[in-house]
Amino acid sequence: MRLDADYARALDQQDPLAAFRDEFVIDDPSLIYLDGNSLGRLPKRTQARLHEVIGHEWGQRLIRGWGEGWFTAPQRIGAKIAKLIGAQPDEVIVTDSTSVNFFKLVMAALATRPDRHGIITEAINFPSDLYLLQGANYLAGGKYQVQVLRAEDGLSVSEGTIAAAVNPDTALLTLTHTAFRSGYVYDMAAMTDIAHRAGALTLWDLSHSVGALPLDLNGCKVDLAVGCTYKYLNGGPGAPAFLYVRRELQDQLTSPIWGWFAQKAQFDMGPDFTPAPGITRFLAGTPNILALAAIEPSVDLLLEAGIERLRAKSIAQTEYLIALWEAELAPLGMTLNSPREAHKRGSHVSLGHPDALRIDRALIEEMNVIPDFRYPDNIRLGIAPIYTRFADIHEAVERIRRVIVERRYERYTIERPDVT
Amino acid sequence: MRLDADYARALDQQDPLAAFRDEFVIDDPSLIYLDGNSLGRLPKRTQARLHEVIGHEWGQRLIRGWGEGWFTAPQRIGAKIAKLIGAQPDEVIVTDSTSVNFFKLVMAALATRPDRHGIITEAINFPSDLYLLQGANYLAGGKYQVQVLRAEDGLSVSEGTIAAAVNPDTALLTLTHTAFRSGYVYDMAAMTDIAHRAGALTLWDLSHSVGALPLDLNGCKVDLAVGCTYKYLNGGPGAPAFLYVRRELQDQLTSPIWGWFAQKAQFDMGPDFTPAPGITRFLAGTPNILALAAIEPSVDLLLEAGIERLRAKSIAQTEYLIALWEAELAPLGMTLNSPREAHKRGSHVSLGHPDALRIDRALIEEMNVIPDFRYPDNIRLGIAPIYTRFADIHEAVERIRRVIVERRYERYTIERPDVT
Repeated sequence: MRLDADYARALDQQDPLAAFRDEFVIDDPSLIYLDGNSLGRLPKRTQARLHEVIGHEWGQRLIRGWGEGWFTAPQRIGAKIAKLIGAQPDEVIVTDSTSVNFFKLVMAALATRPDRHGIITEAINFPSDLYLLQGANYLAGGKYQVQVLRAEDGLSVSEGTIAAAVNPDTALLTLTHTAFRSGYVYDMAAMTDIAHRAGALTLWDLSHSVGALPLDLNGCKVDLAVGCTYKYLNGGPGAPAFLYVRRELQDQLTSPIWGWFAQKAQFDMGPDFTPAPGITRFLAGTPNILALAAIEPSVDLLLEAGIERLRAKSIAQTEYLIALWEAELAPLGMTLNSPREAHKRGSHVSLGHPDALRIDRALIEEMNVIPDFRYPDNIRLGIAPIYTRFADIHEAVERIRRVIVERRYERYTIERPDVT
Repeated sequence: MRLDADYARALDQQDPLAAFRDEFVIDDPSLIYLDGNSLGRLPKRTQARLHEVIGHEWGQRLIRGWGEGWFTAPQRIGAKIAKLIGAQPDEVIVTDSTSVNFFKLVMAALATRPDRHGIITEAINFPSDLYLLQGANYLAGGKYQVQVLRAEDGLSVSEGTIAAAVNPDTALLTLTHTAFRSGYVYDMAAMTDIAHRAGALTLWDLSHSVGALPLDLNGCKVDLAVGCTYKYLNGGPGAPAFLYVRRELQDQLTSPIWGWFAQKAQFDMGPDFTPAPGITRFLAGTPNILALAAIEPSVDLLLEAGIERLRAKSIAQTEYLIALWEAELAPLGMTLNSPREAHKRGSHVSLGHPDALRIDRALIEEMNVIPDFRYPDNIRLGIAPIYTRFADIHEAVERIRRVIVERRYERYTIERPDVT
């Protein structure tokens, strides 16, 4: 495999998705942004759309906006995200944060299995998911055993370990599809099948997968899922999350937060709660319209690019990055903390180093590279194939190499990350 | 009292707050917008601020924004809202929706009184609050008796009725301070005192009060409160809500949604949840930054105007509106469904009519007046004293009169409201 800068530029010239980079606001051409797995870039269409929502829809149409598209935004945008994850249009809705949605679905799932006591997850799951499971157990008076399986190799828990843990007392198996530190991708169909054979429900966190790789929730018979829209979906800082509930389950499940947007015949304002049919019952309070509007143009862009083409480019780019790491960074003491096999890897690559935090600071402060950092020693390099170039990857590795070789990180003494 | 248009214009000329109207985007000078109690107008400063957050902070600063003001936005804006409601800066935080916040505080409050079974509220409370209480009881397996007191006169439940209902088995008394239909304002100090004497906690919904009238949560010894920011706080459609927890209670309470933004030492990403100290533990997931940014400039505007001056103007305007109603609309069959006494009334006035829904449609479609409607027969006229003029009120009553006298509403056959 060729690794040089000319080759990277040649790959960019052949890239069928290259034109999509022009759809994004990129004011500083020398900045190498490899944190789209944490906060995606701003699409130009989103900026224009937000100006319209603010100035025209809110400023001029005022309350009339509710009848002119606002009211149905959670369902409309959910239906578009459904196309990215292999779901039906009426199985996905955009609302609240990932944490709040995860809470809703955990509580709803557990209530369908009142005689079971097991919740199974794993230790490299995103901490918020672990905390929320602990909170659900607190609410249930400690009724559940929350089993947090250990990743044998630090990357993932094997199919065998999960199969051994799931049993007829298991109510829920919940995993993050692409692990936030390592980028390891679970076999969704196999894990879901293990849970189903024991009569348990599955809840997948798609935050680090959606928009980066194809998902087939229907094909894998997934019960429940949540996902983030501010990473590869480029929905803006803290953008509202989505949730998915398999159609046959929707009317059997009760969301724990009985807000008025979950109410059937909401504007009758009757005294008693009756959940709306279908996915709408998983709303809670009034959805934020500016935040929802920020998501839609980017989802449209990803659908135009095509998730299969995005995945193909992402694989080519992470392969290229790993080859560069092997040639340039491994000799300097950086370890690969992500899977080598492409089909087990999402769209970010984690590189470990004892001084990772200080290297991260030096890259940001001196080298105009923005990677991502995860405690204690992981530099995550996020590939957003819709706007990342091969040349960016080549140049990023070169700048990382310089930071280490020139020992530029030594002047930084920060001990803790202070940003998300 | 003079009622004529010249008098209204004279009052506007003497109004010390008149200049604040120029702070808002008002593109159609003939539109009379009396729905600021449902969705406030767009401040010009907010439009400018949002363009900056979108284009500069997200578009250019990208992930660095978290270290440059985003991370502390829930607390910073909460501290400003605290000044409007008589609270300490560290007692208020902005996050999630009113419904989600209400849920969090109800669950947290009930957990502090495990041996009690009573939840007391009243029938004219906002339906979402009633539904959320039913949901909390569902989660507790039906442990609670949710007592929904009836409003004797259709406007409010008397102090005596509430005092008779509260008893040593009462865990929580929750009321909406300004009732959403009638605009009736409860005596916060008296009601809180009734609850406290029985050892119960109080949770106030401030949605129709905050920004319209002075509140003194600390002086009234209020335990818990939530409030909306898209009404008189002009935070935009579906803007994030705030919650208040009295400082001494904060570390005793456990929010039910254990998301990562509630975690102490969040970026250590440790395996076990330990709630952050203080008000931060009532966050859940990642806050939406665009939505938060939309709130702050308007809160600043209200603080500049001064809540006492805003209240004085609001009272003068609702008094003027009621005088006009009595002279012009009462003879046409419209009833006053709000309190006559100014100190018992918030900043909206409800007028009833058997054909209210059709009158509402005619006002919007033909008369360029936007009132607010609440099923079954209430037209709510919302006064937002920071931008509503006396002349607007005079002209609105004249246009309502014409709709009724000219029977313009008869061509409308809509049976249900279709927007919030």
